[in-house]
Amino acid sequence: MTKRIVVLPGDGIGTEVTTEARQLLVEIAALLGVQWELDEGLIGGGAYDQTGSPLPEETVAKCLEADAVLLGAVGGPQWDNLPGDVRPEAGLLGIRKRLNVFANLRPIRTWPGLMLASPLKPELLEGVDMIIVRELTGGLYFGQPKARVEGGRAVVDTLYYTRGEIERVVRRAFTLAQARRKKLTSVDKANVLESSRMWREVVNELSVEYPDVVVDHVLVDNAAMQLVTRPNSFDVIVTENMFGDILSDEAAILTGSIGMLPSASIGGDGPGLYEPVHGSAPDIAGQGVANPLATFLSVAMMLRHSLGYPEAADAIEASVLAVIEQGVRTRDLAGSGQAWVGTKEMSQLVRADVQR
Amino acid sequence: MTKRIVVLPGDGIGTEVTTEARQLLVEIAALLGVQWELDEGLIGGGAYDQTGSPLPEETVAKCLEADAVLLGAVGGPQWDNLPGDVRPEAGLLGIRKRLNVFANLRPIRTWPGLMLASPLKPELLEGVDMIIVRELTGGLYFGQPKARVEGGRAVVDTLYYTRGEIERVVRRAFTLAQARRKKLTSVDKANVLESSRMWREVVNELSVEYPDVVVDHVLVDNAAMQLVTRPNSFDVIVTENMFGDILSDEAAILTGSIGMLPSASIGGDGPGLYEPVHGSAPDIAGQGVANPLATFLSVAMMLRHSLGYPEAADAIEASVLAVIEQGVRTRDLAGSGQAWVGTKEMSQLVRADVQR
Ligand SMILES: CC(C)[C@H](C(=O)O)[C@@H](O)C(=O)O
Ligand SMILES: CC(C)[C@H](C(=O)O)[C@@H](O)C(=O)O
Repeated sequence: MTKRIVVLPGDGIGTEVTTEARQLLVEIAALLGVQWELDEGLIGGGAYDQTGSPLPEETVAKCLEADAVLLGAVGGPQWDNLPGDVRPEAGLLGIRKRLNVFANLRPIRTWPGLMLASPLKPELLEGVDMIIVRELTGGLYFGQPKARVEGGRAVVDTLYYTRGEIERVVRRAFTLAQARRKKLTSVDKANVLESSRMWREVVNELSVEYPDVVVDHVLVDNAAMQLVTRPNSFDVIVTENMFGDILSDEAAILTGSIGMLPSASIGGDGPGLYEPVHGSAPDIAGQGVANPLATFLSVAMMLRHSLGYPEAADAIEASVLAVIEQGVRTRDLAGSGQAWVGTKEMSQLVRADVQR
Repeated sequence: MTKRIVVLPGDGIGTEVTTEARQLLVEIAALLGVQWELDEGLIGGGAYDQTGSPLPEETVAKCLEADAVLLGAVGGPQWDNLPGDVRPEAGLLGIRKRLNVFANLRPIRTWPGLMLASPLKPELLEGVDMIIVRELTGGLYFGQPKARVEGGRAVVDTLYYTRGEIERVVRRAFTLAQARRKKLTSVDKANVLESSRMWREVVNELSVEYPDVVVDHVLVDNAAMQLVTRPNSFDVIVTENMFGDILSDEAAILTGSIGMLPSASIGGDGPGLYEPVHGSAPDIAGQGVANPLATFLSVAMMLRHSLGYPEAADAIEASVLAVIEQGVRTRDLAGSGQAWVGTKEMSQLVRADVQR
């Protein structure tokens, strides 16, 4: 049963980091004594330039047949003024929807030795280890109508959820919490939104099935404060799409190492979509200085969640930690005056450690 | 032309802080050689207990005839399980809507001497001085439908804005920016929301009328990061209701002194609504330890924006600063082991300074 993996390099540094991740995947296969069927596809601005679409149907078809998809990053200034439906982001939203990956998992942890770059005081960072579960295919992002109304005098977006859409992502979060510290924080705005009131009901109903998980409801404005004032008080956070977009980015900068953050978007039975949290970073693209570790850690999540090799995932994470602990840094992680290595060298050092 | 001011003490520490603010207002009147017509009204949980409504019509009528309204805070655990439409928050949302105060102004600044309690590294706090202008009477908060649909199987909230609603709040923000450092950051999610695309259009159209103001558009997820990583890069931020709720609370904890943050909600020609950013703090209510300074600074905003006495506003702000610089602290501001004073003593010290 050869596993199929599709790599979507995308734009900017996406190409550089996925090239290294592909190499890592090949070497992991050899270690595991398995073979992957590795394929590539177009997405984002590059895809638009070549095909007129940021998400060609050929890419979708390939991904739908795969066990997992690795995405680099999409976007760049040259595509910023295109109409919304062909912009690189449309490709990203499109692939999420087409793969039905309704749960976006974003682990955020403190890396010992990397806390210098954090905006927070060091004592707040101790033991930060949370995972944000963001609903990814519903809510304000996709609800209809989303249009100018009253002859252009007004505008409307729609926050729509079915109970089933809420249930399935909340279940994922409960399951994750069970395998961790058994604490689930559900974030909503139940004092204002009807959708949040349904969200809260669903969480309370399902909590009966997970009696070992302690559930807490926090309003989104309060959550935005607590993420900064006590980030280490969270274990698993679950929230709807737009709140998740805002809070996960806020959380992403807390530890000071956005170049180290992976993400996994998973759904029902289709392939999972794995991508680093950082963007395409057009300003440093092509210079060989991008940090490949967020993508390596995304590969680890892929091995764990989609391919069924949790030990290989552990091995990658341990090697990333080891190399960081040895003091090796890419440019984004280096303090001023500190030496740093390029994309290829960092990749090589981590891959060599995985071999041991 | 005697100015009319209605005080709505509300719940919890709201009573304590507005009692001091009322005293401040009386003394300011004497200094200015004017008289206010001071009245009081019920709102929040206390109003519900006494009248069955968190916003009695009598309160609304009084406020509509006033020049300015000072609100303490509403809410408390004893009212948390009431139906949504009679909860204390419903009173708050109701008074905003009835007074048509569509622009919520939240200044956030670093107080020298009060940076200890900030979660951020001190070097990031230098020179933080921003004002968030949040649209307060539209968007997801009030849009219809807001209901269970499809026989309870699904739910919908509606993000609705007219072009006029966007224009009037954006104009306020431009005007404020002109009187400050002439930098306006408009926050939206134009890569996903149609309402954000209209928001961005309106900002760009109006910018022609304010050529001295430099305008920047930032996506809300990115803004949530930048508030933490470079809070001193902002001057005036303008955004829609829900984004503003989240971002203004996130920004509120950055400087470490939420007990010092005032807010003003202003509209067309009706009275402005002034309130401290902190809540009713039921855990410390009645103990005489609440910090009255956010409410004093809200009175300053009232004198500036609604009553036409900017020098009196300056005087209050200068006295608050002076007392803080003398090292006087309320409990929330005191470092561990540091001495602190109660609500009445802090109030008395600042009022005495205003007299000088
Ligand atoms: C690019 C944008 C549409 C996207 C989102 O809002 O989902 C991004 O911010 C993200 O979080 O992956
Ligand atoms: C209490 C709640 C309805 C309110 C809001 O969301 O507007 C509060 O969070 C605020 O910011 O004043």
